[in-house]
Amino acid sequence: MFVLDARLQQDTIDCGCFDLCRLLLMNDSRYPWFILVPQCEGITEIHHLTDHLQEQLWQESKKLSCWMEGTLSFDKLNVAALGNVVSQLHLHHVGRSVGDPAWPGPVWGHSMAQPYTVIEQERMIQIVQNDLLGF
Amino acid sequence: MFVLDARLQQDTIDCGCFDLCRLLLMNDSRYPWFILVPQCEGITEIHHLTDHLQEQLWQESKKLSCWMEGTLSFDKLNVAALGNVVSQLHLHHVGRSVGDPAWPGPVWGHSMAQPYTVIEQERMIQIVQNDLLGF
Repeated sequence: MFVLDARLQQDTIDCGCFDLCRLLLMNDSRYPWFILVPQCEGITEIHHLTDHLQEQLWQESKKLSCWMEGTLSFDKLNVAALGNVVSQLHLHHVGRSVGDPAWPGPVWGHSMAQPYTVIEQERMIQIVQNDLLGF
Repeated sequence: MFVLDARLQQDTIDCGCFDLCRLLLMNDSRYPWFILVPQCEGITEIHHLTDHLQEQLWQESKKLSCWMEGTLSFDKLNVAALGNVVSQLHLHHVGRSVGDPAWPGPVWGHSMAQPYTVIEQERMIQIVQNDLLGF
């Protein structure tokens, strides 16, 4: 039984699911920042997933990356599984732009998030669900 | 014709090659830190590789991750493709330990590297080449 980590739940907006992963939008309007969370209880490292689930994770990561590049505006995509604070396996996809608040350093732990407004959240969820998840 | 980025070359120790990727050891003895560089000229994002090369990259990443976990001592593996400073596609694998200099923050841009001694470098290259690359 998979349960999303409480810190991930608190910091993000749930956009729905791919076949394997929950798709979360980080609630920080300064960056286009999505997180894939494989819905497998107790997994902390990518290479602990079965081969089949690793393939599925990378396919969903590719879909998300291509969609982000085609839809949102940024210069460089940062793809990362860290997990030093939240050990539940999760894969960041952060669109970075020259001159963004943390550029060229990493976004993690850099500065306080600037949450989306309710209207912005609803708009982002609608775009993601219509264009990427095909609801 | 693939040419390794000058900054990557300067900061790392070349350990050899998988089928697709050059395997580099970051010259910072504080962390077990390897970098995979797909030997494809002009590629900056994972999802710009062909499907076949993406699969190969993830297979080599899995091999490296499993080997690091079985051989070296750390608590959490950080796997990341950033590329904000060096745009040539490269995939970090950093073994992190509770209480290491940057813990729990990211290692990138945290503090000055502590280079390996020549003896330590030779020892690391030998272990990697014997155990992982099968020279």
